[in-house]
Amino acid sequence: MSHCDVDTEIKMASPSRMKDATVLRKVHTSWSSGLLLAALTLCVLTSGCNATDTDIALDAKATLNHRIQSLDLLVFVFLLALTVLTIWLFKHHRVSWLHETGLAVIYGLIVGAIIRYAGTSATLVHMQVEPQGVPTYTDKLPPDTLWFKYPVNQTNGTKLPEGIKTYAYVFRGQVHDVDENEIDLKATFDPEVFFNILLPPIIFYAGYSLKKKYFFRNLGAILTFAIVGTTLSAFLIGGFMYGCVKLMPKYLSSSFTFLDTLYFGALISPTDPLTILAIFNDLRVDVNLYALVLGESVLNDAVAIVLSGAIQNYGEHYSNTGEFETTAFLRSLSDFFSIFLLSLMIGAAMGCLTALISKFTRVRDFPLLESALFVLMSYSTFLLAEATELTGVVAVLFCGICQAHYTYNNLSEDSRQRTKQIFELLNFLAENFIFSYIGVSMFTFPKHHFDAGFIITAFICAAIGRAVNVYPLSWLLNIKRKPKISSNFQHMLFFAGLRGAMSFALAIRNTVSDARQTMLTATSLIVIFTVVIQGGAANFLLNWLKIPVGVDDETEQLNNYQVHSSDGYLQDVENGGGGRGKLRLSGGTESNLDTPADGPNGSLGGPSGGRRRNSHEKAILARIWANFDTKYMKPLLTHSRPTLLETLPVCCNPIARLLTTTQQLTQDGSEFRRVDSDSDICIDNDTGNGLGQDVGPGTGPGAGRRNSLSRMEILEHVQSPVSTRIRLLGFYGKKL
Amino acid sequence: MSHCDVDTEIKMASPSRMKDATVLRKVHTSWSSGLLLAALTLCVLTSGCNATDTDIALDAKATLNHRIQSLDLLVFVFLLALTVLTIWLFKHHRVSWLHETGLAVIYGLIVGAIIRYAGTSATLVHMQVEPQGVPTYTDKLPPDTLWFKYPVNQTNGTKLPEGIKTYAYVFRGQVHDVDENEIDLKATFDPEVFFNILLPPIIFYAGYSLKKKYFFRNLGAILTFAIVGTTLSAFLIGGFMYGCVKLMPKYLSSSFTFLDTLYFGALISPTDPLTILAIFNDLRVDVNLYALVLGESVLNDAVAIVLSGAIQNYGEHYSNTGEFETTAFLRSLSDFFSIFLLSLMIGAAMGCLTALISKFTRVRDFPLLESALFVLMSYSTFLLAEATELTGVVAVLFCGICQAHYTYNNLSEDSRQRTKQIFELLNFLAENFIFSYIGVSMFTFPKHHFDAGFIITAFICAAIGRAVNVYPLSWLLNIKRKPKISSNFQHMLFFAGLRGAMSFALAIRNTVSDARQTMLTATSLIVIFTVVIQGGAANFLLNWLKIPVGVDDETEQLNNYQVHSSDGYLQDVENGGGGRGKLRLSGGTESNLDTPADGPNGSLGGPSGGRRRNSHEKAILARIWANFDTKYMKPLLTHSRPTLLETLPVCCNPIARLLTTTQQLTQDGSEFRRVDSDSDICIDNDTGNGLGQDVGPGTGPGAGRRNSLSRMEILEHVQSPVSTRIRLLGFYGKKL
Repeated sequence: MSHCDVDTEIKMASPSRMKDATVLRKVHTSWSSGLLLAALTLCVLTSGCNATDTDIALDAKATLNHRIQSLDLLVFVFLLALTVLTIWLFKHHRVSWLHETGLAVIYGLIVGAIIRYAGTSATLVHMQVEPQGVPTYTDKLPPDTLWFKYPVNQTNGTKLPEGIKTYAYVFRGQVHDVDENEIDLKATFDPEVFFNILLPPIIFYAGYSLKKKYFFRNLGAILTFAIVGTTLSAFLIGGFMYGCVKLMPKYLSSSFTFLDTLYFGALISPTDPLTILAIFNDLRVDVNLYALVLGESVLNDAVAIVLSGAIQNYGEHYSNTGEFETTAFLRSLSDFFSIFLLSLMIGAAMGCLTALISKFTRVRDFPLLESALFVLMSYSTFLLAEATELTGVVAVLFCGICQAHYTYNNLSEDSRQRTKQIFELLNFLAENFIFSYIGVSMFTFPKHHFDAGFIITAFICAAIGRAVNVYPLSWLLNIKRKPKISSNFQHMLFFAGLRGAMSFALAIRNTVSDARQTMLTATSLIVIFTVVIQGGAANFLLNWLKIPVGVDDETEQLNNYQVHSSDGYLQDVENGGGGRGKLRLSGGTESNLDTPADGPNGSLGGPSGGRRRNSHEKAILARIWANFDTKYMKPLLTHSRPTLLETLPVCCNPIARLLTTTQQLTQDGSEFRRVDSDSDICIDNDTGNGLGQDVGPGTGPGAGRRNSLSRMEILEHVQSPVSTRIRLLGFYGKKL
Repeated sequence: MSHCDVDTEIKMASPSRMKDATVLRKVHTSWSSGLLLAALTLCVLTSGCNATDTDIALDAKATLNHRIQSLDLLVFVFLLALTVLTIWLFKHHRVSWLHETGLAVIYGLIVGAIIRYAGTSATLVHMQVEPQGVPTYTDKLPPDTLWFKYPVNQTNGTKLPEGIKTYAYVFRGQVHDVDENEIDLKATFDPEVFFNILLPPIIFYAGYSLKKKYFFRNLGAILTFAIVGTTLSAFLIGGFMYGCVKLMPKYLSSSFTFLDTLYFGALISPTDPLTILAIFNDLRVDVNLYALVLGESVLNDAVAIVLSGAIQNYGEHYSNTGEFETTAFLRSLSDFFSIFLLSLMIGAAMGCLTALISKFTRVRDFPLLESALFVLMSYSTFLLAEATELTGVVAVLFCGICQAHYTYNNLSEDSRQRTKQIFELLNFLAENFIFSYIGVSMFTFPKHHFDAGFIITAFICAAIGRAVNVYPLSWLLNIKRKPKISSNFQHMLFFAGLRGAMSFALAIRNTVSDARQTMLTATSLIVIFTVVIQGGAANFLLNWLKIPVGVDDETEQLNNYQVHSSDGYLQDVENGGGGRGKLRLSGGTESNLDTPADGPNGSLGGPSGGRRRNSHEKAILARIWANFDTKYMKPLLTHSRPTLLETLPVCCNPIARLLTTTQQLTQDGSEFRRVDSDSDICIDNDTGNGLGQDVGPGTGPGAGRRNSLSRMEILEHVQSPVSTRIRLLGFYGKKL
């Protein structure tokens, strides 16, 4: 092969560059392409070259594409950086009427509008082709690739016979609107990026940072709201929307089927945990309300994704006529439950596997390896679920919960911080990216379909759906529930039903039909409205409804602590990062010394904590689980104390011995004990300051405040040197 | 639109899922596809459905593809987890003859062999097509998409006229070997993933964790080795290989041009920083040798990527005949320098911009926001360089250096740890992924071309190239250099020339011709050999060459510290994570108390540190830069002390005041001062324990050791309560 040939081939490799480079590059902003296409033409015309013109042009085009994609992504990164700076500014000046996600959406809208109206759009050139020679369609499937011979303009072309080159084209999808020439394939930002890249870290972090203590306390209510409520709301919205749509003009009503509206119900039902919890966290709202909202919104995301999958499956595989069919419905129902449960189990199993590995190896001696293992195992949970046709997002959620519940206790201090911080950052970036994109896509996504009637109906239905979710179920729950969900809490729960990332992701997943496009537009608007307006107003509403804010979780714990820990436990020292660095002390009366330093809310937190503790009856489900967990799961998976030797029957002793580590056996009650965030439901006097609070989804101010607190405490230690000394001695007494 | 139509359309959207989902999914292991293809067929046959058969089949295929990709990626994630566990086991048992990257390669080879010989491979179906109707080739470029009408097998098909659907196919690239029917497009793992996803974090981390003090001390030598040495080696290998290849059998010699072998020279010249530095770090090898190897291997990666780009450009655009041409050569040369310098400048500018933002805003009050900003700015550097047709990898390297040099000093404690830890983890995962992939691809990558003659020649040439890089240049440098590079050091430098990620990435970037495929195979083998064998033997060679190991960087600093810090500085408290947590003290004689606690190497490090300090003459280049840096850059970009008010001429006072923060003005010499890792070259008595050491690329054991050290120190503090009290008082004296 001669010299020149090789050169031209070098260039041909590059077109592949324009794909895959970074998935995020699929994000399209068309303004840049127009500008640069002009540059391309110029470049092609001016470059004094001798290779075939087509090759040069293709090469230039590939380079151009790479540049456009870099530029597109740069716009988003720039947008995120801008959002970060503005968030800081808002936090700095204590602006409370607009929150970070709302800000990201608004910036997205502005940039989207600029891109839309300032730039030109480049369309793709397409060509109708037919098979060469006699067409033989032996297969059911269209071919994976087409080979297309194209005559090449070769200036000094003597190398190739007839100057024809063969190009490969890969299968993309069906063209629905053959008449519409303008469809720019690049502009279809692949919705799968949401499901495979952006949602997993967000959902994992939600599970990993769940305040498990309060979560388990309110387990019954959370499960009711999340599973029953979401399903109910989905079907209600679906039915109501279908009725409304059929009353609308013909062109709209004909494009909607009942399954479409049902799908819409499923996608608009899940509430978003991000925004509202950021607000709640900033304000330190009542912990039970916090747990209810967090638990529900995290779980209903999982329910919604499985539910919408089941609805789609129903349409695809089971439904014959579009009429209601009992068998098909039941099959979908079993799909729903089996996928949900299997995903849950895979997630839990992988979480437990990680816990076992971290317990029985000494990988914790090397924090970097340990963190790497943690991340790899968590990610493989997602992949495993996807590879077995389950729902990765659901698996990752329960994996996160297990990781926090078991693995976290086995990790080294370094890895705890590192994993918390990494997922916190990933969560932050992913969440802001999604909200920026929601804003930008309102203007740049080509498949929006505005229909005022549908949008208004959707808004009303979304509100009704949320109301149906909250009020009747609260009433039902209140029959048996001891600390009743007060009507103010119910209003707040209703109001906290912001729609977010999951709704948008489900809506943009499929935009082939008019109906779907209309649904996407309505969903985008609902998300933008709820995030910006409801999110901004949450503050005022909390005041208006007189819901306790400024409740410090810690003060409640301190209270419990003083009551129960007569034998003295030492709380874990979480010094670095945003952790609530505390060197609390052990041993009878001394712990009282800490009380004044424990934040300004001691007076408020004290009584409320007491009240809650006394009046709160644990749910039966939670109680059974807690018992099983303390007796078997924790001794098996962590280094916690009642070992399997003590809890298992005597006959199982050999196995129990095998599953108990020396570390577990050698530690005794008074020693530096691993503190566990949800121990409250297991052993009453073990009320630690564990993960739940440390990884709370609060972004900035909490951390800032905590730092200053811990600094204050150190100062206090310095001011009273004797007690400092005693504390330090107490702390290291065992080691000397 | 009727119900059924919408349903089928839902399915059509999913094929797009098989692309983009995750870029990494492009990684292909073909064994799974064979298995699952059988499942597909079964699934299609058994599903009792009524939609068109084609639709169902397409949908099933899309799902299948998604599953295969998840499975493929799962294999790699599993491989990484296995590697992590084995690394731990090796570190635990102090196995030194095999290092982690070598391990990753070996596991990769094993899994690759299993995949190759245990699985079946599915090939893609392709079809030759031609334009419909009269072909009009008005454009130079082949169309972006082809629209292909395909008759659909519709079981109850009355909906669509003639049962024909139009499918879109997108442009992929040229088909080179039209006869070879078997090419599986999915198997071509996109090499751009290396350049756009895996290399940037590795290179950024290299820059961010550079031990700047020693780097700047050896700047002259490093630049000589990296720029002159790499270029020299590339041309020498290129020329020599060309000569050898021409002596080989016709079929081989005819496929190679001089540019090919030159490209090979450029890609095989850069040495890999990862493996050798992990070894050096574990052994705490002599710091100057460490700095030389690190500096050179990091910079020559940057040089090689730009050099290979210039060579390619030369071939594509400038060369007319394949003969040597002076103007084309000069244009390539100017390309090389301009791209390198511009990339460097973009990187440095973005780093400085981040420093400015972090200095002049109080975003450090919110560590999460600060870290997010840091990550976003660093990533946007890469995108910016790529969008302007420069080299992102080079920009990111210098951005990393600037971030470490300036921004790091402005960051909050939390963000320092967080950014260090995140990039450390990313680096670890990316690096192990690459080495695993090198192993796996030896078996699964379809475009390997084994040629024993070429491979042997390549091995010899690579060794010669390295020798030419090291020995003559060392001789030249030794003429002027004060602490001469001893011949033992030279042998070690020669031996430390492992080839790694960059060589492989450059080789796999383009595999269209036989020549390129032969080069890829040779490169893979050289990488595997050097990483496994040379990496494993490095330990023994260090012993054999009697190169000082176990030199603790800290001990040297302590020495300097005692000599210079009579006015007492307090070193930064780096408590959490893998940081070397030290609460060192201030104030005359007291600091002597710390000496015994400072590790077992005090006796060795002491004298060597002294010797080095006294005898080492700073390079002129380094001296000028250090002066400029201390006087203008640092005061502008950080909160460090000689403010611009002091260093700028009086006339610039208004501007200087604007650029000086209150924080900068209010702090005085004795206060808690930001310590800076490379301050050694700026102000002699400011020898801090800053970033350089903290972010050292050591993975596990260092961190473990450091933790235990810091604990020991705290213990010591407890044991002598009076001094502890004084220390703490001294520490917080200013705050009380």
